[in-house]
Amino acid sequence: AAQFLKKFTTGSLSVCRRYSGEVRKATLIPGDGIGPEISAAVQKIFSAANVPIEWEIVDVTPVRGPDGKFGIPQGAIDSVNKNKVGLKGPLMTPVGKGHRSLNLALRKEFNLYANVRPCRSIEGYPTLYENVDVVTIRENTEGEYSGIEHEIVDGVVQSIKLITEEASMRVAQFAFKYAQEQNRKKVTAVHKANIMRMSDGLFLRCCREAAKEFPDVRFEEKYLDTVCLSMVQDPSLYDVLVMPNLYGDILSDMCAGLVGGLGLTPSGNIGTNGALFESVHGTAPDIAGKDLANPTALLLSAVMMLRHLELSTYADKIEKACLDVIREGTHRTGDLGGTATCSKFTEEICKKL
Amino acid sequence: AAQFLKKFTTGSLSVCRRYSGEVRKATLIPGDGIGPEISAAVQKIFSAANVPIEWEIVDVTPVRGPDGKFGIPQGAIDSVNKNKVGLKGPLMTPVGKGHRSLNLALRKEFNLYANVRPCRSIEGYPTLYENVDVVTIRENTEGEYSGIEHEIVDGVVQSIKLITEEASMRVAQFAFKYAQEQNRKKVTAVHKANIMRMSDGLFLRCCREAAKEFPDVRFEEKYLDTVCLSMVQDPSLYDVLVMPNLYGDILSDMCAGLVGGLGLTPSGNIGTNGALFESVHGTAPDIAGKDLANPTALLLSAVMMLRHLELSTYADKIEKACLDVIREGTHRTGDLGGTATCSKFTEEICKKL
Ligand SMILES: CC(C)[C@H](C(=O)O)[C@@H](O)C(=O)O
Ligand SMILES: CC(C)[C@H](C(=O)O)[C@@H](O)C(=O)O
Repeated sequence: AAQFLKKFTTGSLSVCRRYSGEVRKATLIPGDGIGPEISAAVQKIFSAANVPIEWEIVDVTPVRGPDGKFGIPQGAIDSVNKNKVGLKGPLMTPVGKGHRSLNLALRKEFNLYANVRPCRSIEGYPTLYENVDVVTIRENTEGEYSGIEHEIVDGVVQSIKLITEEASMRVAQFAFKYAQEQNRKKVTAVHKANIMRMSDGLFLRCCREAAKEFPDVRFEEKYLDTVCLSMVQDPSLYDVLVMPNLYGDILSDMCAGLVGGLGLTPSGNIGTNGALFESVHGTAPDIAGKDLANPTALLLSAVMMLRHLELSTYADKIEKACLDVIREGTHRTGDLGGTATCSKFTEEICKKL
Repeated sequence: AAQFLKKFTTGSLSVCRRYSGEVRKATLIPGDGIGPEISAAVQKIFSAANVPIEWEIVDVTPVRGPDGKFGIPQGAIDSVNKNKVGLKGPLMTPVGKGHRSLNLALRKEFNLYANVRPCRSIEGYPTLYENVDVVTIRENTEGEYSGIEHEIVDGVVQSIKLITEEASMRVAQFAFKYAQEQNRKKVTAVHKANIMRMSDGLFLRCCREAAKEFPDVRFEEKYLDTVCLSMVQDPSLYDVLVMPNLYGDILSDMCAGLVGGLGLTPSGNIGTNGALFESVHGTAPDIAGKDLANPTALLLSAVMMLRHLELSTYADKIEKACLDVIREGTHRTGDLGGTATCSKFTEEICKKL
């Protein structure tokens, strides 16, 4: 197969596919708003780089099931279950009572237990911070996101934060394995076990357990508030951070803010039986369809997907091309202060491949 | 009384007290570690400014009650109940299972429902940010801090986040009143009602209700993750922020980070029947007793206390003196890169009064 691949990499993706055993299928969920444009950009760049991936494009617009409730269409579910890997653009949250976020439904459906968000400073795109390089690893299935809430009496509501040993152990082990594989030096467990002694206490104990299995990775424990304070003062204090669901929601966004926002940061949701990579910015309806969107977050998420598939050579090449275009500065999109269209930016990346 | 006050302000505080009807008693809890030193600094500065306050110094080292449990000594409780206002240095959390934070016990004991933390850039003390000027107002009695947790089955824990209409309404109204009185323009309600629809939903509805009573204050609603992201990018987007307990813990520390840390930011806990002002930094055992601590956070908390007591002239004078000494730079303490002792820094402030 490697021979065939070599021979055909100058041809079109479909040629490459026909003759190589290494082509993999991946599900592509273009999403809403700017989703289709930035997804097209990723497809173009993957073609230009001759990535041996064939996209299976699916739609996740909720459909009414036999029980009358709206849910993810079966075709989309089947596709991800079959391909074990997918890339997803931004999704609109359906309006109206009772609709839960589709993003959350996908995480639940595929048991995507670890949410990984690397935040790294982008050279040539200055923010207040330099050399940020942290990865937040967020438990993605429980905690405050359990969805269990009651109104006990009028005006008194309780929401359940659910922490299990199983989910905590799984994400803790994932964090250490990730740190080891990516040659990172330290894992910080982020918690409020001084307040939630039992729930965060359990999470923390699992992290300590996992730490023992990875003696070559440093381990430390920090209060969430302390991490927030010190992160904005000196992000170089941190490396890989692992934490319960809600804390990850907060910290990952904060870290994205340090390096330029959600338009630049990738995200991966890793499950027991598949993985979904996604840009976590919004659908930007104001600029949708105008060829003005920045595809960077989705492209870098696709790069994470390639690494997950052990296609690191392609990953490195595409990532470098993307970051080079941003650094050089002449073809930046509007969100980065430039005037390039999404197509132009994409074209520049393709030229470098 | 005003006549007497005028006459005697050049004398000692006790003289001033003897002849003026305006002297008020306030409880002082010096606290642990560096607590006594920085409390002494505040006392000295208050004397130098002839503040008509007499301190009642109490100790809150937990004592074993008739039920065998450790708790706040009755004398301290009585003092705050009588004086309705107190100033508190940092407290050590007792070690050992079952001991809850004394800070939390105090908040509970006096029903201190609103935690107010102004974060303002300090001129001449540069951080990455300029002109930060935000105030976080945190619900201080419930939420994730309910203390209700269960292990349902082995390895499965739930913590209860409790949100009530009463506490939410109270803190929301407080936030708007605060904004109005302090001439602030906007209140932002910070929430995750997209996830915790019922609990954060209730909190948010209370904020909307309160907003109607204050049509001259702008109101907006933002997701917690969005606030975290945009705060580190541009703190000038925000003014007064109001939120449930845990979010306030996080955001207030993050904002403190933007302006230089907990050594510089004051805090007030406002209750229905009293108020406790405190520095929220730690006890710094490594430098305790060495005359190296920075009393600024406690002093600025005392300044908040003066404003609370409508002693704003004194408040303004002391605040200006403190900020002037920091700005001028020659008498900064070690934490701010200077070599001044706590005493020297205190003396310089007194000189300006
Ligand atoms: C859209 C929303 C439900 C989601 C979350 O709260 O997890 C988002 O903020 C994220 O981080 O992916
Ligand atoms: C000491 C700790 C219990 C406390 C909290 O979590 O509220 C602290 O972080 C604070 O913000 O006052």
